[in-house]
Order: sequence, then structure tokens, then C-alpha cells
Amino acid sequence: MEIEVKFRVNFENIRRKIEDLGAKFVGEEIQEDLYFALPSKQLLRIRKIVNLDEVILGYKQIKDERNEEFDEIEVKVGDFEKMRVILKRLGFTEDVWVRKHRFVYKLGDITFELNKVEGLGDFLDIEVIAEDVQEAKRRIWEVAHMLGLREEDVEPRLYQEMLKEPLKHVRKE
Amino acid sequence: MEIEVKFRVNFENIRRKIEDLGAKFVGEEIQEDLYFALPSKQLLRIRKIVNLDEVILGYKQIKDERNEEFDEIEVKVGDFEKMRVILKRLGFTEDVWVRKHRFVYKLGDITFELNKVEGLGDFLDIEVIAEDVQEAKRRIWEVAHMLGLREEDVEPRLYQEMLKEPLKHVRKE
Repeated sequence: MEIEVKFRVNFENIRRKIEDLGAKFVGEEIQEDLYFALPSKQLLRIRKIVNLDEVILGYKQIKDERNEEFDEIEVKVGDFEKMRVILKRLGFTEDVWVRKHRFVYKLGDITFELNKVEGLGDFLDIEVIAEDVQEAKRRIWEVAHMLGLREEDVEPRLYQEMLKEPLKHVRKE
Repeated sequence: MEIEVKFRVNFENIRRKIEDLGAKFVGEEIQEDLYFALPSKQLLRIRKIVNLDEVILGYKQIKDERNEEFDEIEVKVGDFEKMRVILKRLGFTEDVWVRKHRFVYKLGDITFELNKVEGLGDFLDIEVIAEDVQEAKRRIWEVAHMLGLREEDVEPRLYQEMLKEPLKHVRKE
């Protein structure tokens, strides 16, 4: 299981704190994710990692209410557009694009994904892959506190939910 | 469009004739195809090319009654089992495995796929990629006649249909 908590942050401020913590920079990715419409609690996306010239098909099941626990399967694919056409022919509908610049740090088995998300701002995902969800969350919050992050900094919504919200408002008015 | 006509053949006999025609051997593949159940006229499969250590996701729409005209999209994927799990999670049901040893020859833009299909026997697909279906078929039949093949040698069924037929009989009795 992938357990991750997402915080709304100030990019430069939190980046310095992550480095001060001794976390190791492992790379950056410019990601363009195309999400397809799926029944609730499931995610399907094709991710283009622009700077690495990689494409990844990803499927996730959300296991909790706060979008913090995921069962994830990812597989590399050879061509973004061909995968996109196959999914459309199979009946899936394109939903929303999420574009971000991600900086990844590691401290032991804890992964920090510091994201500049187009149209939304800066976020930090603190992630652990583990079977014991409670123990994973305890460890995530331990480092979160060391970075000065608190419960009110948590962003429980998915990026694709946030990106679609202004649209909902417009439609209502 | 992919236009191909499938003939039931004697492997060694037809192989010699293809070589005598001046066609060039371009390679052989040991293919294990897992087909998923889809509404009629559509095919979805994951192909494992065992000897080349490659995996390809393929989607086809059948455009005619005799299974000779296809709109095909293929994309390489990094891992057979992960792709299989993603499709199952998305709701697709596994249907049938087709296993074959394929010998490929080329003569200009005509492709000969000589297949030893597990449980079914030997077949030759003569294939052309073209927009003009009638012209493509004329050229396919031109070389087919040069190989001594006739209308009664045509096998209009898909391999996966043939493989499922004995099962239907068993169920009826």
C-alpha cells in the first residue's frame, strides 16, 4: 500500500527544511498527467514525464476517505498517444490534465515529493510504501512535525478534484 | 488499415514456396496472447513475445464480416502481469490464450506470417497495410495464387474463436 499525506506548502521554505533534515535529492520530473473518468475511488491516468521521455500508465484504488491510502499499479508504455487512443476506444472518457514540476527527496524509506502544480500552487506529498497504515502515518507525521507542518496544512483533495472545482462554481452561477 | 487473409496451410510446403518467391525472412516470434472479453468486432489482447522479451498491448476493431480488415493500435508495455492486473481492475474479463510460433517473411510491402498455432495447426496470414482495401486484397490474392492457395484454403475465423469452439460443443452435449 502507498500511504501519503499531502500538505499545502511554501516551496522554497519547505525545500530548505527538507534539505536541512538530511534528505537526499533524487531527481526532478516534469509530469503531465491525463486522467480518465472512472467510478469514484478509482483513478486511471497516463503520465508523460516530459524531461525523461517516459510514459507510465497508472491505476489507483483509493482506500480511505482522506485520499491518503492507495493501492497502486504502474506500468511503462511506449507511446502516450497510442495508449490514449486505446483507452478511448475501450470507452474511457478523458477527464482532466494535471501538470506539475516535481522535486523528489528521500530520507530512508520516506519519500518527499515537492510539487509545483500548474494552476494550484505548491504541495508536499510525504509518502511511505508499507502494509501497516497506522505505523506509516505515525512516521509520516513525525517528519511532518519536524518540517513544521500541522494538521491545518493538510490538503485532502486530489489535484484533479481541485482543478475541477472552479469549473463547478462557474456552472452553478 | 491492416488487411490480411488467413489460409490453412502445410507449414514446410508453404515455407519453401514463400522462400522460392524471393520473400525475405525477417524473424521469428514465440507469441503468447491473452485476449480479454469485449463486445463483438473488438479485440483486446496482451501479447508476450517470449523469445524477444517484449510485451505489447493491442486493440483491434474488425471492419468486415470475414475478419480480414482491421483498424489496429499497438503499444509496448513494460510488464505483462501489471498490465493484466490493470485491465482486470478496470473490469475486463480474461477470455482465451492463443499461443503460436510465428515465422515472418517480407516481399516488398507484403508480409507473410507463417504460424504454428498450439492446438489448431499451421496457418499463413498474408498482410498488407493500406487504405485501399480492394487494391490490397487484389495484391494479397495475386501472391496467394502464386503460392498455390485458393478460396477453399481461407480460414475466416479468428484463432480465439477456433480455440473456443470445442468448448462450446462440450457444453452442448
